[in-house]
Amino acid sequence: MGKKIGLNEAAECLRKAKSVIITAHVSPDGDAIGSTLALCAYMRAAGKKADVVIDDKLPKNMAFLPGYDAILRPAYYKGSADLLVIIDTDTSRIEGVAEIAKGLPVLNIDHHISNNEMADYIFIEKRAAACEMVYEILTQLKADITLDIALPLYTGLATDTGFFKFSNTRSSTMRAAAALIDAGVQPNVVSEATEAKSEAIVRGQMAALQTMEVIAGGRVAGLFLGWELMQNIESTDGFIDMVRVIEGVDVAVLIKCVDENVCRVSMRSKGLDVSKVAGEFGGGGHIRAAGCTLKMALPEAKKEILEAIERALEA
Amino acid sequence: MGKKIGLNEAAECLRKAKSVIITAHVSPDGDAIGSTLALCAYMRAAGKKADVVIDDKLPKNMAFLPGYDAILRPAYYKGSADLLVIIDTDTSRIEGVAEIAKGLPVLNIDHHISNNEMADYIFIEKRAAACEMVYEILTQLKADITLDIALPLYTGLATDTGFFKFSNTRSSTMRAAAALIDAGVQPNVVSEATEAKSEAIVRGQMAALQTMEVIAGGRVAGLFLGWELMQNIESTDGFIDMVRVIEGVDVAVLIKCVDENVCRVSMRSKGLDVSKVAGEFGGGGHIRAAGCTLKMALPEAKKEILEAIERALEA
Repeated sequence: MGKKIGLNEAAECLRKAKSVIITAHVSPDGDAIGSTLALCAYMRAAGKKADVVIDDKLPKNMAFLPGYDAILRPAYYKGSADLLVIIDTDTSRIEGVAEIAKGLPVLNIDHHISNNEMADYIFIEKRAAACEMVYEILTQLKADITLDIALPLYTGLATDTGFFKFSNTRSSTMRAAAALIDAGVQPNVVSEATEAKSEAIVRGQMAALQTMEVIAGGRVAGLFLGWELMQNIESTDGFIDMVRVIEGVDVAVLIKCVDENVCRVSMRSKGLDVSKVAGEFGGGGHIRAAGCTLKMALPEAKKEILEAIERALEA
Repeated sequence: MGKKIGLNEAAECLRKAKSVIITAHVSPDGDAIGSTLALCAYMRAAGKKADVVIDDKLPKNMAFLPGYDAILRPAYYKGSADLLVIIDTDTSRIEGVAEIAKGLPVLNIDHHISNNEMADYIFIEKRAAACEMVYEILTQLKADITLDIALPLYTGLATDTGFFKFSNTRSSTMRAAAALIDAGVQPNVVSEATEAKSEAIVRGQMAALQTMEVIAGGRVAGLFLGWELMQNIESTDGFIDMVRVIEGVDVAVLIKCVDENVCRVSMRSKGLDVSKVAGEFGGGGHIRAAGCTLKMALPEAKKEILEAIERALEA
């Protein structure tokens, strides 16, 4: 267990560092990439050596962010550092970056309360996004918020809050966003870049919507993507939102075959604690967003999950 | 032509009024309803007589706003007023409200530069939403921003900016939103209420997506809804966004039959000035969002519009 620190100490820790490796979780999202790129841009502007190293493929819709092309896989990292900064996750989800940073002191900046608290210095706050925390650290450091810092930070705020729609959106999130717009961010540029979908994905949505069922007296809506259908679907990002918005629907569920007899389940709710439903099948998550994996074909998985949701709704 | 006024004078005009009729444009949207309800709630709290009167049906997805049920059609308005306040439009789009307010001085608060400037006192600013202007007037009046003021204002800000995604989103918009969250607004409540769709609408989207075509080397994507298909579609709100997000698409177009031989055309662009294309067919709008109506069947309308878009792209 490390030492819990606050904003001032986190800022001080970065001020003292001379060469840092900055990383985030595998399967990086807008907040992971935005927060690491923004901190890296600041550190470099402050005359330090800084690199973003992430041990995974990067989502293409973040390629518009300045610094994206310079993000390294661990094997390509060169040089030495005096601090590892882990953002938007804990020590458990950085994969190969742990190897190249072996022995370094670790500063962890995270907005997930589930953090394992294994880093040396741990700055955790319940915020909309890690980018909100990095914004406040940089403000504390009196950083000049240039566009190559502002654009990644805004992108993380926007994507982690579903463009300011989710319940995690706070007034501090909006005030940070306002300051970043003043620093030159154009909100439409961020939404157009991050929401761009290939024609194939839109055609996949089309096919997915054909499977829609609304059940349990209108309280549950689902999409059920069998193995054959999945062969023509590039990504299911955003599919569940298409049925989540139906009036009266509390629980939206997406079940997709990731192999012939393996189904991955995603659930979103407006009221029901879906993490409990996911827990029945060895999965987990948050009250309003959870998931699990079932080793069975689609018809069986669908039956099991829908029955479990209906039981929970009746409880 | 009336007198152009600024924030202070607009606030003073409201401070002096004792009984007001507050109205907005027909086909009212979130900003029209939000701005009028918020001002009405403030005026009543300040001990004045105030009524929102709008001469049209109201969108059901705004029914969660406090005061919605008390919005009147002109025929039901009783009493007398000393001021008509027109928000989010000018004197040309208030229909029957003009009759009941005949002879009253008119205060006009609008964020559309196309305003006809026929009111007595005209407060126009280029803002994201009329709600942003009403928020600033109420701040100027040192109003206590209660939830029944904050919720409608936030809803107008959010809906007129596509949840803070459009190019009209400013730092002042985000700061107003932050203050309204501090006043008790829950952003997820606003997004869930305003984005709720009936199952029929989602099934309509499904059918509409089947008509998708991507043309002009990927620069144009369209949905083409014939008369038969339209019989099963309740509303086409948001349909165009489904194709607008396709990578590489500059112009998204939706053509729908509103009668057997009448097609209504909506266009959204990321670069091309679609108001010029709409203008060729007697329509109009903004650079990035425009529309027109063609008195012909779908196949002909489609051919005409796509050719005009391609010509404009090549120009």
